[in-house]
Amino acid sequence: MHPPVIGLDGDDTLWHSESHFVTTTARMVELLAEWVHTEAAQDHLIAVERRNLARFGYGVKAFTLSMIETAIEVSDARLPASAVQQIIDWSKELMDHPVDLLDGVAATVAELAAGHRLLLVTKGDLLHQESKVARSGLEGHFEGIHIVSEKDPATYRRILDRHGVAPADFVMVGNSVRSDILPVLELGGRAVHVPYEVTWALEHVDEGDLPGEVTRIDRLGDLPALLAAGLP
Amino acid sequence: MHPPVIGLDGDDTLWHSESHFVTTTARMVELLAEWVHTEAAQDHLIAVERRNLARFGYGVKAFTLSMIETAIEVSDARLPASAVQQIIDWSKELMDHPVDLLDGVAATVAELAAGHRLLLVTKGDLLHQESKVARSGLEGHFEGIHIVSEKDPATYRRILDRHGVAPADFVMVGNSVRSDILPVLELGGRAVHVPYEVTWALEHVDEGDLPGEVTRIDRLGDLPALLAAGLP
Repeated sequence: MHPPVIGLDGDDTLWHSESHFVTTTARMVELLAEWVHTEAAQDHLIAVERRNLARFGYGVKAFTLSMIETAIEVSDARLPASAVQQIIDWSKELMDHPVDLLDGVAATVAELAAGHRLLLVTKGDLLHQESKVARSGLEGHFEGIHIVSEKDPATYRRILDRHGVAPADFVMVGNSVRSDILPVLELGGRAVHVPYEVTWALEHVDEGDLPGEVTRIDRLGDLPALLAAGLP
Repeated sequence: MHPPVIGLDGDDTLWHSESHFVTTTARMVELLAEWVHTEAAQDHLIAVERRNLARFGYGVKAFTLSMIETAIEVSDARLPASAVQQIIDWSKELMDHPVDLLDGVAATVAELAAGHRLLLVTKGDLLHQESKVARSGLEGHFEGIHIVSEKDPATYRRILDRHGVAPADFVMVGNSVRSDILPVLELGGRAVHVPYEVTWALEHVDEGDLPGEVTRIDRLGDLPALLAAGLP
């Protein structure tokens, strides 16, 4: 039996991402404090992001446009232009943020690459994701880098076809049950959930909606031992 | 001798795009008329787009953020929030705009596909480009669809390697000398320029900077006859 092909998610699986968005959201909440309290500002942002998702997609630019719309709406259009510029400046900081790998990721990816074909499957702004992959120093370990607009079963099928991999020979590993786990299980592949410290509201899945038991580890560093022991 | 593999650009080669940006820019100029005259507003926008390009990349979302920054700067931050919302609303219109194929494109692409392997190579927002490709009705004619963050020689080499095509067997066809012609000639491929009615300032190339004679046709519909006669 061949070792399985491993798919790895990028944001919040290999490197920190959502925590930077959380920090920026907290700054936005502070900026809007004269008009609206914390929870209402957060909820409004999530509603605007949800409304804009099909049109603007994922990533920093979409997040920025949604923050600006949120700020205009909760201030009843009394927001000063300087506050809009402030939000755009934060988006530039997000774009420029150094790529911080999660603990142990560099060594684990190198170890996995020695025994498995690896695919990186990530979504977000095309240019920003390419830049993060390049800055991660991990690119050379992957047989394929796939930056996609949505992680649904059709997307995974296209990627697996391209690499000539049957779903049964594929294990996807990531922090999002919605994007990394469920669509791969639906295809007949296997998946391992590595939760991140925070989950974006639009990626949240209720435990009750999970199809049976999902294999879960605390950190990516636990993956080689899990693979050696044989996945459930 | 095999017929060459044909690469086709999307925006302004297969379907209208820049004309929609020109229309939106004209609306922005009107919105800013109380602060700045037409030409200064246009020049300021181009300067901001140029400044933001490496960070935000191509596409509607980057254009929108640059329009907002332009409006804030030329108004000396006196821009009302309602005007910012207006700009964001225009960006949604741009995203939702129907895909208008250029005259004769549907028939020409079908004709080309009957005798050649076709690749679509386009840049911009990932989700928006995917959506335009899907709505174009042309997807089935292409062996590969490549949405990229920059059209440089390395990008074209990667795409050609993936399809097992030597540069000498490849002809790229598009409206941008900078993105569709020069990088392919640099690789040793051939290219055919099909000018669009307008060229975005950031894609402009001086004729004097061209490497010798560039093959140019007035419309995509002239390509089959050119190929039949043999490219220079």
